[in-house]
Parts: sequence; structure tokens; C-alpha cells
Amino acid sequence: MKTRVCRLHGQGDIRIEEIDVAAPGPGQVLIAMGAGGICGSDLHYFKDGGFGPIRVQEPIILGHEVAGTIRGLGSGVEGLAEGERVAINPSRPCNACTYCRQGLQQHCLTMRFFGSALRFPHEQGGFRDLMVVDAAQCVRLENPEVSLAEAACAEPLAVCLHALERAGTSAGNLAGKRVLVTGAGPIGALTVAALRHAGAEQIVVTDLEDYPLDIARRMGATETINIRTQPDLLAGYATGKGHFDVAFECSAAAPAIRAAIQATRPQGTVVAVGVAGEVAVPLNLIVGKEIAFIGTHRFTAEYAAAVRMIDRRAIDVRAIISATHDIGSALVAFDMAQDRCRAIKVQLSFAS
Amino acid sequence: MKTRVCRLHGQGDIRIEEIDVAAPGPGQVLIAMGAGGICGSDLHYFKDGGFGPIRVQEPIILGHEVAGTIRGLGSGVEGLAEGERVAINPSRPCNACTYCRQGLQQHCLTMRFFGSALRFPHEQGGFRDLMVVDAAQCVRLENPEVSLAEAACAEPLAVCLHALERAGTSAGNLAGKRVLVTGAGPIGALTVAALRHAGAEQIVVTDLEDYPLDIARRMGATETINIRTQPDLLAGYATGKGHFDVAFECSAAAPAIRAAIQATRPQGTVVAVGVAGEVAVPLNLIVGKEIAFIGTHRFTAEYAAAVRMIDRRAIDVRAIISATHDIGSALVAFDMAQDRCRAIKVQLSFAS
Amino acid sequence: MKTRVCRLHGQGDIRIEEIDVAAPGPGQVLIAMGAGGICGSDLHYFKDGGFGPIRVQEPIILGHEVAGTIRGLGSGVEGLAEGERVAINPSRPCNACTYCRQGLQQHCLTMRFFGSALRFPHEQGGFRDLMVVDAAQCVRLENPEVSLAEAACAEPLAVCLHALERAGTSAGNLAGKRVLVTGAGPIGALTVAALRHAGAEQIVVTDLEDYPLDIARRMGATETINIRTQPDLLAGYATGKGHFDVAFECSAAAPAIRAAIQATRPQGTVVAVGVAGEVAVPLNLIVGKEIAFIGTHRFTAEYAAAVRMIDRRAIDVRAIISATHDIGSALVAFDMAQDRCRAIKVQLSFAS
Amino acid sequence: MKTRVCRLHGQGDIRIEEIDVAAPGPGQVLIAMGAGGICGSDLHYFKDGGFGPIRVQEPIILGHEVAGTIRGLGSGVEGLAEGERVAINPSRPCNACTYCRQGLQQHCLTMRFFGSALRFPHEQGGFRDLMVVDAAQCVRLENPEVSLAEAACAEPLAVCLHALERAGTSAGNLAGKRVLVTGAGPIGALTVAALRHAGAEQIVVTDLEDYPLDIARRMGATETINIRTQPDLLAGYATGKGHFDVAFECSAAAPAIRAAIQATRPQGTVVAVGVAGEVAVPLNLIVGKEIAFIGTHRFTAEYAAAVRMIDRRAIDVRAIISATHDIGSALVAFDMAQDRCRAIKVQLSFAS
Repeated sequence: MKTRVCRLHGQGDIRIEEIDVAAPGPGQVLIAMGAGGICGSDLHYFKDGGFGPIRVQEPIILGHEVAGTIRGLGSGVEGLAEGERVAINPSRPCNACTYCRQGLQQHCLTMRFFGSALRFPHEQGGFRDLMVVDAAQCVRLENPEVSLAEAACAEPLAVCLHALERAGTSAGNLAGKRVLVTGAGPIGALTVAALRHAGAEQIVVTDLEDYPLDIARRMGATETINIRTQPDLLAGYATGKGHFDVAFECSAAAPAIRAAIQATRPQGTVVAVGVAGEVAVPLNLIVGKEIAFIGTHRFTAEYAAAVRMIDRRAIDVRAIISATHDIGSALVAFDMAQDRCRAIKVQLSFAS
Repeated sequence: MKTRVCRLHGQGDIRIEEIDVAAPGPGQVLIAMGAGGICGSDLHYFKDGGFGPIRVQEPIILGHEVAGTIRGLGSGVEGLAEGERVAINPSRPCNACTYCRQGLQQHCLTMRFFGSALRFPHEQGGFRDLMVVDAAQCVRLENPEVSLAEAACAEPLAVCLHALERAGTSAGNLAGKRVLVTGAGPIGALTVAALRHAGAEQIVVTDLEDYPLDIARRMGATETINIRTQPDLLAGYATGKGHFDVAFECSAAAPAIRAAIQATRPQGTVVAVGVAGEVAVPLNLIVGKEIAFIGTHRFTAEYAAAVRMIDRRAIDVRAIISATHDIGSALVAFDMAQDRCRAIKVQLSFAS
Repeated sequence: MKTRVCRLHGQGDIRIEEIDVAAPGPGQVLIAMGAGGICGSDLHYFKDGGFGPIRVQEPIILGHEVAGTIRGLGSGVEGLAEGERVAINPSRPCNACTYCRQGLQQHCLTMRFFGSALRFPHEQGGFRDLMVVDAAQCVRLENPEVSLAEAACAEPLAVCLHALERAGTSAGNLAGKRVLVTGAGPIGALTVAALRHAGAEQIVVTDLEDYPLDIARRMGATETINIRTQPDLLAGYATGKGHFDVAFECSAAAPAIRAAIQATRPQGTVVAVGVAGEVAVPLNLIVGKEIAFIGTHRFTAEYAAAVRMIDRRAIDVRAIISATHDIGSALVAFDMAQDRCRAIKVQLSFAS
Repeated sequence: MKTRVCRLHGQGDIRIEEIDVAAPGPGQVLIAMGAGGICGSDLHYFKDGGFGPIRVQEPIILGHEVAGTIRGLGSGVEGLAEGERVAINPSRPCNACTYCRQGLQQHCLTMRFFGSALRFPHEQGGFRDLMVVDAAQCVRLENPEVSLAEAACAEPLAVCLHALERAGTSAGNLAGKRVLVTGAGPIGALTVAALRHAGAEQIVVTDLEDYPLDIARRMGATETINIRTQPDLLAGYATGKGHFDVAFECSAAAPAIRAAIQATRPQGTVVAVGVAGEVAVPLNLIVGKEIAFIGTHRFTAEYAAAVRMIDRRAIDVRAIISATHDIGSALVAFDMAQDRCRAIKVQLSFAS
């Protein structure tokens, strides 16, 4: 059995190749992939050959936002059947290290995560027509009206749900809260949807471009601010020591971080969702206003929760899927995914 | 200027009387009352002459769930105008005692609360055609489509929003959580609405009667269980150490408290909303499962939040308003309010 | 190889018997037991044949507060050597169930705990001269001045440290806090020591007997109250809605629970440490004062922490060890352990 | 009545001048000042004419770490008497603004704080022989063995106690925790003392100089690291995703902030105590390890708690008082206070 794969051989060098697929072993299933979303980390691997200290050191099949249809079952698999559609959790923690034992699987010391170059040999990802995965990674869809494209958004949505959980450790229940979201890319847009679903009273979103702000409004933003063309609007929220109970910083840009901290009230919470290396922050404001600046990383139980929310359309992710290209046109898809004026989430489709 | 008032002279002795109304003083406004909800405490005063150690010791005008229209302004009132419709916060904390200084105004050592016999002389309440209140108690309605009857539900909704905040101190953000609500009276029903608004994934509601369960479904329950006719359903949630992340106990009945604790998972949260005196609890389960059994009392900032949610219909309270009677028929209203098979919330209306 | 064991055959029927000891298998060590504390649950098994629904259904070797010296190593054991002295963690969670995966090993669905009749066949305990245990259960002592008798107090101290952790989820850091401890048995006394170590400003302890209160003072209580002879002293702390930030309820007696809740301030925390079945609680106070009534059960990482604290004498447990008897005189020891006027913790010693 | 004052007229321009003292008004007391500690902000005003956007715009009497003896009482003062020794809380919040009403008096929108140039006109401070203060600012000493010099350390100690409270909102109870303190100036040294008092298991302190590290050991540090001469020691704590549960960052230096974040475990807490303007932080580590980076600012109830701890010598602050000079030699004192190799806390003494 053969499958096409989308494999990165080096900076800018994506190739569509054909490789063998083994039969599913014990506890495994064979998936005919249906949809795969291109993530910012996929783009960094492609454009820059990595990000920060993480570098692509060998050919790597990209992709960790994937969903597909079961085409074969290994021995001992229960609760799944051929033909069923599933979202696939890209996390495979060891469940034995000190952090796994504390329920912090996202910090597993030997985490295996689809399409990640963090460890060597690299973990191979899900941009491929056929793939063998662990049955334990599969979360079944129940609703026939929900597409595999939607299901493939479960991974970024899980990131956002986990960010809300992290906010909740400091801010408690988010219903009725005033919230700022800086950066309206895929994570920002899904954070908006998660906040609306969580009953936030006010959801103000900022970005430098109008297109993502339009999408943010469709996802539930109560107000959007284009920082380039409306530079003074956000400043109004910074008066009187700040307005927002919680801010989700999804841009990793220093000016946005500063603006988020300025606009957050004393003892408010700023969740750092976006990643960069060294970034300057206004320490005097963090200290003087007693801001809780809280990091968030991936997810644990939130993956299954995200699938259920998408499956019930409790959160409708369709507005963020800007375009879909067959894996054979992966380069077109990767190009488009970098254009913030046209695309939020670009997905690949596969032969099935 | 004269006004009718609904005054309780002793157990079972409600009289509609006429008294003088003074002009509003500095910082006060004159209200033409529009709607007033009958609360469980009003019923206890009426039926039992009080509850627990709190006894009616002098005639008391009942009512603390009220909304009306401004008919006059005292000197120095800003931000309000004649003709505007407002919900009226029944709390008047001292803002100076040790608890007020900690932001715990609901525990004010000299709290003045509409229609309360806790202190002597009693605080007079809002079941009256005309009333002078502090401007600071008024929260304005913006939406002309929302009725004063809906606005009068802000007080019990604020109680529920505060209960969710209390839950959040232990359980964090409630979005995606599995929640049980025991008791589907007005507070249970509004808790369901608040939970749906907060994105709870599963909201199971129990009661002994079908009528309130029907209303609970209309308010957002995902499942309802009649404990009398379906005694085994809830037990299923108690297997494997329990299912729910959070339970809101709104009945104050020992069997319901026990069932809530049984059905809650280890390190889960049970919020005690319903009040009684001494009640037996399964201490072995609270200890063995490390349950956080957390009391909740009234509200602070949640009152204004409740008005905003009702005003935007972010939470639609209309399904709980079962009947409305003119203050002149208060006895009929109080009788109906005690019939759980016909009524969730019964309101009084007033001359305007 | 033979060992004496202290085995309970039924209510009141303790026998000292001799059984075979196997050689330690892979990952195991052979222990020459040095000290074993008699716990309240051992006493309940002995006096009542169990507690609540947990009944002794087959002969069971009692004991879970144990420490000893390594006398043999199975294959593959690293980091331990013959002759080393260790405290032995009596918990063996599965590390695979849903609660273990969340870091809640104390709620393991198939927990194996020394000397426990909860599951059938029962888990055999540590009151025996020789015992084979998992190397992973052993925590080494470093300080030659610390006795195995002290080390055997690590288990009840771990219970108390976990209770403080649970308090901390609601009350934050305990340094500088005003704390009440109701009940001055072994758990109460060690809670006092843990609170003093944690910097609590005021530690008031109540009991019905003078002897345990004397010990409590030696463990760090700032004030002790004999509820029988000084019935009015605690009431003084209940005025003005209560005084204490946190209470640790270690008696499981309804009057003490009520008194603890009365004496705790609004939004204060009462940790339920003592266990009983159904107990009446003042629901109106829990609700009206918004008390967080929080259960606590055993420990996870606190076991190793307790050993380290005892080993450094950061917490000195010696004052609670009231008497020591050879396992051959177990009945004498069990009798004395029931006399609250003479004993806090009674321990067994073993042949070595 | 006249008093000497230590007044700053501009950068580097401290003058000892004589001004009139009014009699204490209603609710006020006249203080003969006994000791006044020089704080980092006093030094910034002196050396730099301010810090960040806060500039000295008019002559300002410096000093906010003060204690003295009551020499006169205004009308209506209760609970204080002439001759009593008191520590003086330099905070005067309005108790009426939105933050005061939330119990966040440290964020009072119109806070008046001794010797602060934040607002204009500036708040005058306490470096003066005689001063009239509000009785409500005074916290009485009970222990005749404790000096006013020690009592004057209550203000910086309160800052540290509040930092521990802030840590507790994320990390819970600090007893048994592993803690890092970066920077061993007065705040670092008192944080160490507060951590030891709170039962932290391990307290590792870093600095660039040996002298403050020596003092840190005397205050309770379990290990000290001179970052300049032992550059590799701290790195060892960063392996395996980090070692410390909590870090208190007291230096505001970018390398120390980075090191603190590196050495803190996943979901650990870093409390930002030291203040600077813009500082670069490793965002990838905050996000990837889900660090809670939490600001802390001044104190509320912790001031009285600090006085009680000093008064009981529960925390002994004497080791940090490096030197004392009469107000007439203020320049010598300010010079010495800048020399980290000789001084932790330098105090002024006054005519009495």
C-alpha cells in the first residue's frame, strides 16, 4: 500500500512523495486522511527551516491538524469501526514521566507530537493520504453534517480552550467578563469563538489587517479595532488603569503585548498565547498593576472537548476555513496561508 | 403623595395599605414601580413569619426583586432622567466596615437589604406603587423591547451569576464543564440559563415535579430527571466516583445534597445555593472525594451584570415568569407562588 | 524465611502469627520493619470490624504507617542499598486510570493501600517483622539522628501536609493566617505542627481532653481550648461573623464542625479532615458566610515531602509518640491507642 | 513647633530644612519619628530625579519606611496613647473608588503614599523629626525589646508578604515548596525571611555580590549563588524543564528574569517584585512552560501583619539594617545606601 506525503526536505523545499504504508498493528487504525490544516509552525518550518532553536534536521512530513476516515483496524481495537470519521489528536505523551504523572501531559519530557522537529529523529506528521495512528488518538464524529474540514480545526480549537482554562486559573469563570484578543489569526479567531461560547460579555479584537477582523466579527467579536488605521481606539481602554478583565495575546508582537497590558485592569489576567523568542514587556505595568501574565501551551483533555464542541456545532468553525487545496498543490496552499489579507486557515485535502 | 404598599403584619397577614411618599432627597430618585418578583424569602415571611432565627417582629413591606420607571429626581443626581426604566439593586452595604473594605459587600456587617427582617428595625421593601430609592441602586435599561418584568428578574439572576463566580474560584472557567443542578425553582432555572450562557457542555437538572423540569429545559438544560418518577437515572452518574465537574445544589434538601455529592467527581465542586438550617451531609464522601462544598450568598457586581445580560437578552428570563398579579391581588399571587406544579416565578404589577 | 505478622481475623480478634516471606522480586526490596504507628482506621478494624460500608471480610495484616531497614534487594533496584533506612509509602496507585492520568493518584480507581479492607481481596499491611515492598515505595532517611519511629510518622504527616495543600487551593499561602484546629488527636497534632511550620500566625486548638491539648501546645498551638471545661472560649471567636481564615476539622463530630464553621470568617475555608458517615452541618452558615468546606484525602507527593521534613527535623514529631510496644504485645498497644487521655500515637516495634 | 525635614529639591539636591508642625487635628496624632529606612525609590528620586515617567517636580520630603513614638493626640483618637511606639503605614487610599470598593486599595485611583512624586502636588514623606499622621495609619508595638528601627522595616516586609500572597493565588500554600529568589537587596532579603517563616523547603538566592548573599543566608537562604563568580550553578536548576515551584524576581534585570523563568518548572509561578521599564523576557519559555508571571505591588492588610511579625520577632529583620545615621547626615546615609557591597538597608535616626 502506498501513500502520497507532503514532506519538507529543507527551507522552502516541500515535495510530494510516495511512500509505503504498513498495515495497522495492535491498537492502531488505518486512516484515509480527509483534511489537514496548515499551522503557523508548518509555515515556519517551510519558510525559515524552523523557529528559534528548533530546526528541521531531516526530511519531515508536516501536519498536525488532521481528521479522516477509518479504513482498517489493528487487533484489539475497541469502540471504533471502519468507515467512521475521526479527528486525530496529534499528541502522544509518555504517560510515565514526572509531568505526565501530575496530569501535565502537555509538558511530557518525551512528548511525541505529529510533524514536530523538536526532537530527533523528528516526529512525522499527518499531511498524507493514508496514515496509521493509535486508536487512542482518535475522537469520533457523531454528526454527519459536520465535515472533516471542520473536525481538523479541533487541534487549534483545543489550544484555545486550554488558553481559556489557563485564564480561568487566575480569572475564574469567564462568563460576563470583558475580554481583549490581540491578533486575529486562526488562534485569535478561534479564541473569540471560544470566548463567545463561554459567555464573555465584551470581546474586543485587534489586528493590523481588516480581513481577519472581519472574520473575528463573524466568530463573535463585539468590537474590532484595526491598530494601523484606528490607532487611538485601544488607548481609550487603557485609561483609569485599564478596562479588560482578561486579555488573550495571540500576536507575540511587542506593541500588542504592551497594549494588552495597558488595557488590562489591576489584578487582571493576560494570557500569552502567541510565541516568539525574546520580547520586551512593560515590567513596570505588570508589577504596578499586579498583572498575571500567564503562558499557555497546547492542551490535554481539551482536544476531545474541542471535537465535541465542533461536532455539536456549539462552536462553528467554518468561517475560518478560507481555502482548501489538494495535497498535490501544497505549495499553493502554503503560499496562500501566509497571506493574512486573504486567509485565516488554509487546509489540504487528500485522496479518498 | 400616597402609595399602596404590600405589608406583612404577621404570619399569613398581608395587607394592602396606603402610606405617604416623601419627595426624593439629594442623590435619590422617585420610582413608579413596574414589576416585583415574589422570592422564597417573601414566602417564608408570609407563611412562617420568618425562617430560622430571622423573625418578622414589626410590619414589613415585602419585596426585593423590583424594577420601575423614574418619576422624579432629587438634587445632585447625574446619569439618570425622568422616564427612564431601571432595575433596582436591593443591597445597600455600608461601604465602610471590614468586609466592605475587602470588597465583600455581601457580608457587610450593617447591610440594609430591601424587605429583610434580619435587622431591627426591619428594612422596608419594594412591593409598592411608588418608592424613593438611592440613585446608586438604579441600573438603567437600554433595550425598549425588554420589559420591567424581565428586569425584575435581575436580582435572582445576580444570585445565580454570583454562584457561578463562586464555582469559578474552585473550578475555573465553566465552559465545557459537566454540571448538575438539583432543584428547578426560580434559582435553579436561572442557574441553568447562566450555565448555558457560560458554555457548560452538559446541564443535568433534577426536581420532584415535572413542571419546573419543563421550564428548566426551556432555559437550557440538556437533560432533566424527575427524582420521584425516575429515581435511578441520577445514580448512574455516581458510578466510578462520580461524573460532574460542578453541581449547583438549589434545593437545600438532604437527599438532593447527598445525590449531588455522590454524582460529583473527585476534587469536584458543589456549590450550596439553597438554604436550610441543620442538614445532614455525607461527610465520608466530601472527605473521600475531596469535594469542595462552597457556599454562595447574594451578589455584588453581579447585579449590574445581570441587568446587562437581561437587557441584551444574552439571557432570556421570560420562560420563568409564570404569572403576574396586581399588588391588590397579592394574596392570590403569594398562593400561586407556593405551587411548584404551576409556577416558577410569580410577579406583582403596580399602578403606573 | 519466616516473619511474625499482626493479623486481624475478625472484630477484636488480633493474632500474632508466623508466615513465609518470599525473596524480593525485580524492583522490590526486603524490609526489616522498625516501627509501625497504629492509625484510627486500624482501631476501627479492630474494634468495629470496619467503618461505614468497609468491612473486614478475610484475615488482614494491619498497618500502613511504617518504616524500616533494607535487608535485601531484588534485581534492577537502583538508588537503594542494604542497611539503608527508609520510610515506606503505603500507596500503590495504578498510574493508568483516569484519575492517575490527571495527577490525582489518591483517587486511583484501583488503589492498593497497605492494610486496607476497602477492596477484596484486602491489601495486606505492614505490621510484620519482615516485608517485601516495591523499591518505588521507599523514601530514604539521610539523618542518622532521626529514628525509624519518627519516620513512621511520615504517613499521617503527609495526610496533614495534603490538608494544608487543599486549604491552599482556596486560602492561598497560609503564612500569617489565623487558623483553628478542632480535634487534637494524631492528625490534629501533626496539622498543628505543619501549620506552625507554614507560618500560621495564630493556631487555636480545641478538644474535649486536656492531654491531647498539652501535646498540641508542644507541637505549636498558640492557644488551646478544652470544650468541656471552657465551653465559652470558642464562642468568642464566632462574633462579628467569625475570626479564623481557615479551620481544620479533625474530629468529625457535629458540634465541632458547627463550631468551626461559626468561628470562620466570611469566604473562609474549613478543611474537612476527620471522617464520619452522615453528619449534620449548619447549611445556613455555609451558605450565608460563603464558607468553602473542602474535603481532603490522603496524599500524593506529600509523602516524600513529609519524610524530608521529618528527616531534617523541620517538623519534629517526637512529642506525639506516646508509647511503643513490641508486635508481640499488639493487644496492649491497641488498647492504649484508644485512650485519648494517655496516648496520641502508639507504635509497634519489631524484631530486627 | 518646628521640625527638621529631609527635603529633596532636585536631582542630587537633598537639604535638611526646618519647617513648622501643626498640632494634630481630629483623628490625628503627633509622632516623634524614631527610624526611617531609605528605599530604592528614595534613592532613585535622589540620584535620578525620579524613575520612568515619575519625576520630582517640586520639593519633596522623602521617606515612607517609618516608625516613631506618639507625642500628642488629636480629638477623637481612640486606642492610642502618648508614649506608645508605632509603625506608620505610609498608604492612605481613598476607600471610595472602584478599586478600593473591590478590596484593592493598593490600586486606589487617588492613593496618597508618603514621599511619592507620582501625583502632583507630591505627597510629603516621613524623614522628619516630628510629623502629624492619621491615627488609622498607626500600628502599635507591644514588645519593648523590639526597636523602632526594626519597626521601620514593616513597610518593606509588607511588600514581601504581599508578594507571597500573590504567589499563593497561583501556587497555593508555600510550605514545602522549592523557591528561587533573584536579587538579595532589602526586598530580596526580607522575601527570604518571609519564605523561611512560611516553611519553604528550599530557598536559593542569587546576586552579583557576596555581601548581600551573606545577609540572605542569615535571613534563611538554604543556598546562595553569586552569578558572577559561580555562573554555572543556577543553570543546573534549569535542566529537565526547571526545578523551582516559585521564583521571586527582585532584581528587575533581564538576565535574572530569564534565569528565573528557565529555572522554574512547568506551570510554576514567577512573581515579578522588582520594577523597571521595558524589559526583554523569554516569551517562548513563558508560553512553552505555561509560567504564571505575576506582578505584585505594595500591600493592604499585610502592613499590620508585618508589624505583628516583627513585634513577635516571628521574623527577625535586624540582620538587614546595615547602618543608621542621624537625619543631619542624610547625604552620608544616601551614599552608603547605594553601595551594595556594604549595605542592605540604611536608616535615618531622628531627634527625640
